[in-house]
Amino acid sequence: MKSRLYLDWNATTPLRAEARAAMVAAMDVAGNPSSVHAEGRAAKALIEKARAQVAAALGAEGADIVFTSGATEAAALALAGRGMSCAGIEHDAVRAWCAEDLPVDGDGRVTVADPARATLQLANSETGVVQDLPEGLAVSDLTQGFGKLPVAFNWLGVEMGLISAHKLGGPKGVGALVIRQGLDVAAQLRGGGQEMGRRAGTENVIGIAGFGAAAAAAARDLADGVWEKVAQFRNILESTIASEANSTIIVGKGAQRLPNTTCLVSPGWKGETQVMQMDLAGFAISAGSACSSGKVRASRVLRAMGMDEGAAASAIRVSLGPAVTEEDVLRFAEAWLAQYRKFRARAA
Amino acid sequence: MKSRLYLDWNATTPLRAEARAAMVAAMDVAGNPSSVHAEGRAAKALIEKARAQVAAALGAEGADIVFTSGATEAAALALAGRGMSCAGIEHDAVRAWCAEDLPVDGDGRVTVADPARATLQLANSETGVVQDLPEGLAVSDLTQGFGKLPVAFNWLGVEMGLISAHKLGGPKGVGALVIRQGLDVAAQLRGGGQEMGRRAGTENVIGIAGFGAAAAAAARDLADGVWEKVAQFRNILESTIASEANSTIIVGKGAQRLPNTTCLVSPGWKGETQVMQMDLAGFAISAGSACSSGKVRASRVLRAMGMDEGAAASAIRVSLGPAVTEEDVLRFAEAWLAQYRKFRARAA
Repeated sequence: MKSRLYLDWNATTPLRAEARAAMVAAMDVAGNPSSVHAEGRAAKALIEKARAQVAAALGAEGADIVFTSGATEAAALALAGRGMSCAGIEHDAVRAWCAEDLPVDGDGRVTVADPARATLQLANSETGVVQDLPEGLAVSDLTQGFGKLPVAFNWLGVEMGLISAHKLGGPKGVGALVIRQGLDVAAQLRGGGQEMGRRAGTENVIGIAGFGAAAAAAARDLADGVWEKVAQFRNILESTIASEANSTIIVGKGAQRLPNTTCLVSPGWKGETQVMQMDLAGFAISAGSACSSGKVRASRVLRAMGMDEGAAASAIRVSLGPAVTEEDVLRFAEAWLAQYRKFRARAA
Repeated sequence: MKSRLYLDWNATTPLRAEARAAMVAAMDVAGNPSSVHAEGRAAKALIEKARAQVAAALGAEGADIVFTSGATEAAALALAGRGMSCAGIEHDAVRAWCAEDLPVDGDGRVTVADPARATLQLANSETGVVQDLPEGLAVSDLTQGFGKLPVAFNWLGVEMGLISAHKLGGPKGVGALVIRQGLDVAAQLRGGGQEMGRRAGTENVIGIAGFGAAAAAAARDLADGVWEKVAQFRNILESTIASEANSTIIVGKGAQRLPNTTCLVSPGWKGETQVMQMDLAGFAISAGSACSSGKVRASRVLRAMGMDEGAAASAIRVSLGPAVTEEDVLRFAEAWLAQYRKFRARAA
């Protein structure tokens, strides 16, 4: 049996060895971080170590890192009740709290009129398109950019950022809200003094330790040029596909993109069908974001970029990671093109 | 160097071997539970296995288990905006959302006039006092009872229950809201279809797997009579202390209590001082709940039971677990009595 190939790194990533080791080590620390005794202080020390690791990896030294159960909770903490503007390409966890009134161009770039009253993602999970964040932006979803792009929170000019561990090799269910020094948010989870009163509840010590270690490893990989290699393989994938599939559109190719993301639209061939065909062939890819619990339909992101319903329903996302090789992407391209030929033959 | 002895199991518990094994195994499952491909389905299967384990352990088959980042989040989900009544002995994460207008007697028992508009804990974390939950109760914090008391959610007659993994040998940062079939709650974390639309955000797969395994192991231990042994040792501890420390009060001794919890009030000897003295002597205990981030002051729970400020500031909690032996409790009693003698000598 051929081994499976995971090409859905924007949905979630395999756990890094460094995160695994930190989590297993944290399993031996029994205390509650809020307890004053030695066992409690040891647990607290793990959290503070992870906080420093995340801050360093994100270039957010001096900013406040409020650990949460993920970027979804960080989004609620940053955005709920504030009536911010956003674009239709934002993640659902951001869209839940904002008015979608910012314009998006055909390459997925967003124009922000009033940065202080707006939220804008750094990079899009489906297309990989990277935004030029305006100075003074209130909130930015940094989830897909953190770990893949050389970015320093302290130089971004944004007030708050949302990050997630499992997009960069950490565990699922851990994230953070990053807050520029001097700003604050009102706690939504209440009844405990954790996270300086901004987020009550006994901390996910094991997960947070994993986040810290993953962030440190991701920063090291980024500095080592790992994503330049990934971008090469992504480009090989795209040129291999483009050389034959001439009715297939590569979305956002005119814009700056994440190094690992390809969004392919093949009008008339449903993304859902492609995902299933490739799954059976041993490849994990996606049609749109994973976060709608198994629902597969026309990509809202592509619709917001002006694509029609039919085209937006014919998209797949292939997202690579550091473990993916050139041979892997060629194997995928071959398998996908084999299905593409059948689709074309049926359509003819 | 003498090894340390952890006697603060109500604050948090060491991770059970079964939970550790399940979490390490889950680290190999890379997919996002919301992804439709094989990797996603494997992650989803881990969550559903844990859900069944938790439901079985809690006697909540058929009820809905909504996984959260802990009991604090479950409390917010169950209680925010509902204007429920509660007593002053509830955990801060419950008190944050209710009006403290229910009367508490000197043994810590609460009277509920209108169960449908009230929340009442099953057992108190500081005193161990167990409540007789009234039929039709809207919400109950089951955190301290789950795993230590033979309780079946489906027979409790309550509409919703709050539970936490780290109180029964699971990881910190995972919990659940248990909802009687046919009832519902409005999601507070939004922007994803996870947990049947009641709680958005990519699931803490590793932590949830640990919760399931810990709950199953806790249910097995309970059935095996492990807590009867613990209760014996707790009683030995209390009688050893009472035989000499005749000014010390054992709180809630007239009420039904958790098998593992002793709350000792020694008027004039600050709980905070006792905790520090015992910490230096190698014992982890607490003064009141751990959840106020290192703040140690008069116990709010004991104040709500009618104790004066001085007495309530002189309390410690010793909470045992299945790993604690008779020798351990005698070693603690000896060390504590040695300090008690010094306190009495100073006070004389």
